[in-house]
Amino acid sequence: MKIRILCTGRLKERFYTEAAAEFSKRLSRFCEFEILELPDEKVPDDPSPAQIEAVKRTECRRMEEKLGAGEYVIALDPRGKQLSSEELSEAFSDAMLRGRSRITLLIGGSHGLTQEIRGRADLVLSFSRMTFSHQIFRIMLLEQIYRAFKIMNGEPYHK
Amino acid sequence: MKIRILCTGRLKERFYTEAAAEFSKRLSRFCEFEILELPDEKVPDDPSPAQIEAVKRTECRRMEEKLGAGEYVIALDPRGKQLSSEELSEAFSDAMLRGRSRITLLIGGSHGLTQEIRGRADLVLSFSRMTFSHQIFRIMLLEQIYRAFKIMNGEPYHK
Repeated sequence: MKIRILCTGRLKERFYTEAAAEFSKRLSRFCEFEILELPDEKVPDDPSPAQIEAVKRTECRRMEEKLGAGEYVIALDPRGKQLSSEELSEAFSDAMLRGRSRITLLIGGSHGLTQEIRGRADLVLSFSRMTFSHQIFRIMLLEQIYRAFKIMNGEPYHK
Repeated sequence: MKIRILCTGRLKERFYTEAAAEFSKRLSRFCEFEILELPDEKVPDDPSPAQIEAVKRTECRRMEEKLGAGEYVIALDPRGKQLSSEELSEAFSDAMLRGRSRITLLIGGSHGLTQEIRGRADLVLSFSRMTFSHQIFRIMLLEQIYRAFKIMNGEPYHK
């Protein structure tokens, strides 16, 4: 099984890069796992809605160029559907059983994802009503992907 | 303003302790902030429901002993109410305006909180339908407390 995170911008804090490296290592036991970081656009201070929209569009176009046919695409967005960890694990198994070549999860930059790329996704997934920085969010997503595999494999995972 | 996290068990991974230290430092700009870690109970492998209940009860009794009158108590529990970051920020301001001496947030151990301590709380708050390890959850909570103060103070905080 191939899993990939497509995201915009870099992790800046060392503790986040270390946490991401640790989860990537753990995930490599279960799947071919990859994180692809795409460049983020500079947003001016106090940006206008049009400036924000332009930044999002550029960032999301870069993501779309990386998406291939046959991938199961999950867009992470607060307006999406909330799943439990067990339901996310099932969504992964289902995608595999239906012969999807890869699961790709999209994390937008500071201003999120465009409507177009959300429309392209097979699932728009929300973790929470709360807003998290995209840095910590990446670690939260990694932890849930890891948890999904532990659930699929019936392995215990202490909460 | 005084804010305290009461939690069961220690952070084990270095990246989590470093992230917690960084957020605690940032929070000290805004409030008197404290994390109090209480000991966790050993859970046997493949525990019975009664064993789990006993562990939870012991752990939560330790928490209750630390709670004083006049505190605004928030229990973190997946069955709780979901708030947005803005709503959590308002809950903090409201508690202060009503003259509460301190806000205390409770994170249970591996098996969560008892019904009794949830009943004692002013607010039972859920971050997500998903289950997170209590280690990463502590960082998520710290990030949301920090975000709440940034919102209260009208300071920008890049997502």
